[in-house]
Parts: sequence; C-alpha cells; structure tokens
Amino acid sequence: MRAWRALLGAQHRLSRVLDLELQAAHGTSLHDHEVLIILSEQPDGACRMADLADQVALSRSGLTRRVDRMAESGLVSRQPCPVDRRGVLARITEAGRRALEAATPVHVAGVRQHFVDVLASEELAVLAEALERVACAWPGAGLTTAGQAAGA
Amino acid sequence: MRAWRALLGAQHRLSRVLDLELQAAHGTSLHDHEVLIILSEQPDGACRMADLADQVALSRSGLTRRVDRMAESGLVSRQPCPVDRRGVLARITEAGRRALEAATPVHVAGVRQHFVDVLASEELAVLAEALERVACAWPGAGLTTAGQAAGA
Repeated sequence: MRAWRALLGAQHRLSRVLDLELQAAHGTSLHDHEVLIILSEQPDGACRMADLADQVALSRSGLTRRVDRMAESGLVSRQPCPVDRRGVLARITEAGRRALEAATPVHVAGVRQHFVDVLASEELAVLAEALERVACAWPGAGLTTAGQAAGA
Repeated sequence: MRAWRALLGAQHRLSRVLDLELQAAHGTSLHDHEVLIILSEQPDGACRMADLADQVALSRSGLTRRVDRMAESGLVSRQPCPVDRRGVLARITEAGRRALEAATPVHVAGVRQHFVDVLASEELAVLAEALERVACAWPGAGLTTAGQAAGA
C-alpha cells in the first residue's frame, strides 16, 4: 500500500504543479492539455468520446463537460462518428494544435523539473518498465470502449 | 517523458479498475473511498475542504460537488471551521466509517491484485521511495491551503 499511496501522491502533486504552470503560462489546464495530446496523436486528430474517456482520468459526464468547454474555446470540434451511429468523435482543430504547440515547452520543462530531475536514471527506467506493466496488466487496459471496459 | 506517461497510464487504469470493483461490490466510487480514507486518518475525522482538495485529484468546485453528494448519502457532514471563519470542514460520519470499513477489503485486494502482484519487491521499493521523493519535491507539496499552493 505504501507504493500505491506514493503513486497517488506523486501523481496528484505533479498534476497540480503542472496544471498551475500551464494555467499561469497559457491559461490551459493540464486536463485540456492531455486531451489535446491524445487527439493530436490520432492519425486524423479525432477520437471517439468513449475511447477518450478511457484514456483520461475522467468520467463520461466529466469528459463531456470538458469537451463542451474546449469546443466553446475552439480547441476541439464534436461530430457524429461515421462508423458508430451512437458514437461521437472529438477532433482537434487547427487552433487546438496551435495551443498544444505553444504550451508543450512549458509542460515538458515542468515534467523535467518536477519529475525527471528528482530521480536517478535507474529509477526512471524501473518506473517506466514497472508502470507500463501495471497499465497493461488487466484485460480492460488500453483503448477499449467504455462498454468493453465495464464488462472486463 | 516515457516514465511520466507510464505513471499517468498506470494511475488512470488502476483507478478505473479499482473504481469498477468498488462500485460493483459496494456502490462506492474510488474518489468517495479516497475522501473517506483521508478523513478517517485525521485525529478528529475532519479536514478543511481546502486541504482535502489538495490531497485528492479534484478542483475545489469538483470537491464541493462530491462532498455535497457524500453528505446527501450520509457519509460525511459539513460544518463551519472553528479556527477559520471562511473555512468549511468535512467530517466523516459513523455511517461513513462503516462504509469505509466494509469497502476496505475489496480495495486492498484490488491494489494487491492489479499493482503489488504485478511488480517485483525491488520494483515496489524503488517506486515507493522515488515517488515519495517526487511528491515532496516542490515547495507547495503536502498539506497546504489552496491559497498557499497557488502562491507557491
């Protein structure tokens, strides 16, 4: 339990400081930034809302509220999913890509300062390998629809 | 960045599976469970809302909504803070302590199965030590009011 509490503590505090830094520099929240990163890494810049909810630490309703706000700011657009009539896609806009590009140096510097520089390189290697194993260790891991994850 | 992405990924997916397990067994969310754990560990079972927000991955408004819902369910009560006229305390109720006690075996078994058992004991030791260092590495870490954290 000590390692698990440490994981939660580190993630909470890192998220908080990275969020404060992004807000101060660009007025973007860390959660918005994470959504933009995920969308920008999709081949066509779009992702089903159900799959996006799986990848960020948000409930479906929390993600809907967030994407609504981001759409109002012009960072993303929402559209019906062409392959699933009940699905909705969130797509990063050109403005979203520019906001992501502008905020990335601040975010990367923050991760370096508050995480990478605090750790020895062997620790980073152990962390990366161990935590990737944790992330992939249960059947619902990875890109799944909410339905699949709930049934796992 | 690989270790940081792995940390986020592991935390998201662990939180999701632990949440599903708690919801299935007891109808409690992982976030509610975390709030109850923190309150139960305070000497008098109470914590200022501002300090509580610092310890869970929630904004002030998100925490207010959550504590409102938990108060409706009778798990916590809200009351004015005796030492800070603007402050509000959340306090765990007897029903909250019983709910926490009932859900704890499911939560502990989940952490064991999805986290501890996936890792070697040396990995767990490195993780705990490294991540505790990360959690304490910046001036705003630990129990601070939101005002202090924002100014850090």
